[in-house]
Amino acid sequence: MIFGDSKAPCAELVVIGDEVISGLILDRNSQYLGERIHALGIEVSHITTVGDSAVIIEDCIKLALQRADWIILTGGLGATHDDITKSVLLKVFECGLKKDTKVAGMLEAMFQIRGRKIPESVSSQCEVPEKAEILYNEKGTAPGFKMSKGKSILFSLPGVPLEMEHLFEKYVAPEMAGHGNKVFLHRLIKTTGLSEAGLWEKVGPFEALLEKVTIASLPSYLGVRIRISVLAESRQEGELCLNDAESFFAERLSRYIYGKDEETLEEKVGDLLREKSLTLATAESCTGGLIGHRLTQVSGSSDYYKEGFVVYSNEAKMDRLGVEPRLIEEFGAVSEPVAEAMAQGVCRVTGADIGVSVTGIAGPSGGSDLKPVGLTYIAVHDSSGTQCRKFIFTHDRGRNKERAAQAALNLVRLRIQGESGA
Amino acid sequence: MIFGDSKAPCAELVVIGDEVISGLILDRNSQYLGERIHALGIEVSHITTVGDSAVIIEDCIKLALQRADWIILTGGLGATHDDITKSVLLKVFECGLKKDTKVAGMLEAMFQIRGRKIPESVSSQCEVPEKAEILYNEKGTAPGFKMSKGKSILFSLPGVPLEMEHLFEKYVAPEMAGHGNKVFLHRLIKTTGLSEAGLWEKVGPFEALLEKVTIASLPSYLGVRIRISVLAESRQEGELCLNDAESFFAERLSRYIYGKDEETLEEKVGDLLREKSLTLATAESCTGGLIGHRLTQVSGSSDYYKEGFVVYSNEAKMDRLGVEPRLIEEFGAVSEPVAEAMAQGVCRVTGADIGVSVTGIAGPSGGSDLKPVGLTYIAVHDSSGTQCRKFIFTHDRGRNKERAAQAALNLVRLRIQGESGA
Repeated sequence: MIFGDSKAPCAELVVIGDEVISGLILDRNSQYLGERIHALGIEVSHITTVGDSAVIIEDCIKLALQRADWIILTGGLGATHDDITKSVLLKVFECGLKKDTKVAGMLEAMFQIRGRKIPESVSSQCEVPEKAEILYNEKGTAPGFKMSKGKSILFSLPGVPLEMEHLFEKYVAPEMAGHGNKVFLHRLIKTTGLSEAGLWEKVGPFEALLEKVTIASLPSYLGVRIRISVLAESRQEGELCLNDAESFFAERLSRYIYGKDEETLEEKVGDLLREKSLTLATAESCTGGLIGHRLTQVSGSSDYYKEGFVVYSNEAKMDRLGVEPRLIEEFGAVSEPVAEAMAQGVCRVTGADIGVSVTGIAGPSGGSDLKPVGLTYIAVHDSSGTQCRKFIFTHDRGRNKERAAQAALNLVRLRIQGESGA
Repeated sequence: MIFGDSKAPCAELVVIGDEVISGLILDRNSQYLGERIHALGIEVSHITTVGDSAVIIEDCIKLALQRADWIILTGGLGATHDDITKSVLLKVFECGLKKDTKVAGMLEAMFQIRGRKIPESVSSQCEVPEKAEILYNEKGTAPGFKMSKGKSILFSLPGVPLEMEHLFEKYVAPEMAGHGNKVFLHRLIKTTGLSEAGLWEKVGPFEALLEKVTIASLPSYLGVRIRISVLAESRQEGELCLNDAESFFAERLSRYIYGKDEETLEEKVGDLLREKSLTLATAESCTGGLIGHRLTQVSGSSDYYKEGFVVYSNEAKMDRLGVEPRLIEEFGAVSEPVAEAMAQGVCRVTGADIGVSVTGIAGPSGGSDLKPVGLTYIAVHDSSGTQCRKFIFTHDRGRNKERAAQAALNLVRLRIQGESGA
């Protein structure tokens, strides 16, 4: 859902690969490029995905050269016989190959480190189109190319996401940034704990905002993100518009907002723990280690993440965290008293300031009438006491685990911020 | 990389939406449709993604009608002012609107259940193009349309994945299936532990296979998947071709293959543990719980996954797993002796039959000349002894963790299968 409108210069993407067009792999490159190019104030008008067919690729490139200021190709630059982007470029730009000694040197160095000879197929990578500027690729064996025709500039990048992103950021983005005459800025406001409908109800009327910015509502099962975009005469003017809109939402959504832009919930929790010099320990049953995994996605998390237990069995809950057997007998492993005992136990055993625990039925099996699949108890304990919340998630196993981990991290955030999780 | 070729009838997809082209959301519909249409023996030649611009959408549809037998549009059928697919269809197919009473009845029933009146914007959904056959949508408020021009058939579907899939399976797939005269089958062979170049070197010449099947090589940082496809006269004939090709690869790659089609490495490990009535425990430092998370993605994993420890700190390694302080002092926490002591310790403490441990430097900080970022030791212990392997991963923090978890699960698989991980 997008509210409002915006205008900008124009780019096209051409995605090349049988794997993509036949659904063998999910194309994430287009989203990355769409987002980044948009952020640079250039509009993407078409994304065309085609297979490894020389005729079709050639037609697509020619059409794109007629329509767009910028063209970015991804894929088909590998060293095997079906990687044909380079030969199509020779045809479209009417030129031959030349040897690039810098690429040759880089390949040699790359294989020397691994103690291997360059395979014959790979060595052809130092043959490049005569009319191309070379985009040197430190992350892989295929160099990228920059070529011009009329007023259009074409970049050909490898399809491997890591290499594509590297060359885009190193060569393409700086060049694009210099060409837009307006500044296009975005800000993402990240919320969790409200449905999309519930969120917009809480926000209320916001039409006045749309005179200056565009608003997008991006729901997912882990929360709703609000995207504010602005096309402004200057960065300063744009930032002011974004700040105004952000304040508008912050006033109305306060505690549901955990971060902005690239910030993740685990980073926010980490920042809060570090700020208050607190340590955290985890006791996970149905999430199986996912909370620990998320916490340790943050570099430096060893400063505040003390330790974690994956206590899948009743035995482990008792032996490791001192959960009393009678609690499990009387209430079952998936219950409020057990969740609370796990959170208290993990603090006692590890000496952490805050303990968070999850016990639930991730599914698809293991549910009953009284305790359905998705039933999950999450408890947070610290010196001020223990609080437990009950959730019933309604997705598949994987998503139930993800929702539980998200809710657990969010409850830790609210506890540290001194807000109730209820 | 795809080897071999196949011929089939031809379809095009047109994906409509500002959210998609500007990277706000990831388009998963195209992958779904690409895969399904391919499986029906029809080739997808182009996927064109465009924004909510009437002129651009019209051009795209006209071009697709010239090139393809089947055209599928997704998106732009909602009831808000930026959903303009319907008005573009009126223009391209030169017709007006009519009211469809069945759609009107369905909308009424839908809102009656919710105890609400139909909003005015939604009620326009029962106005449909005169020349369209209606695709009745039980999962949402927007009906789809089927329209023909010359030999081309166009389907216009909503962009919401649930509704799109529903209408595709209900109306489009049966019609496409009736038109393909051949059966298109696939099989995925999943490998880990070899680079793409290393894998194909080990496979050796395979051109003879290409007389009957198409082969795709799909590398990722967790391993290479080989996809075998066949276009056959019958399912039986197709399965025989796939079996032959699968045996060919199984002979040459044996221990590097961990599964096929949808099977995951954690499922394979689970199947092997269950088969041999063995239990597993994990001791994770740098992976932070990711191995436990992956193991518990499998329903029923509580049968064999005993317990896990996230021992990020030296303290936790000593207190929880009995790693001797002098090992950490002498060799450091990221070392072979500590990895081995962790794997041994987790077996001793939990009584599990197999213990797997990971200790490494995920990055981006924490590396040194002697111990670079990415250095990771993974140990597996069981009654037959302890084995440790050293890896140097060269990605970012998140990917280093994923590669370490993949390698750890693979070493457990090899240990149970009685093969060395060296």
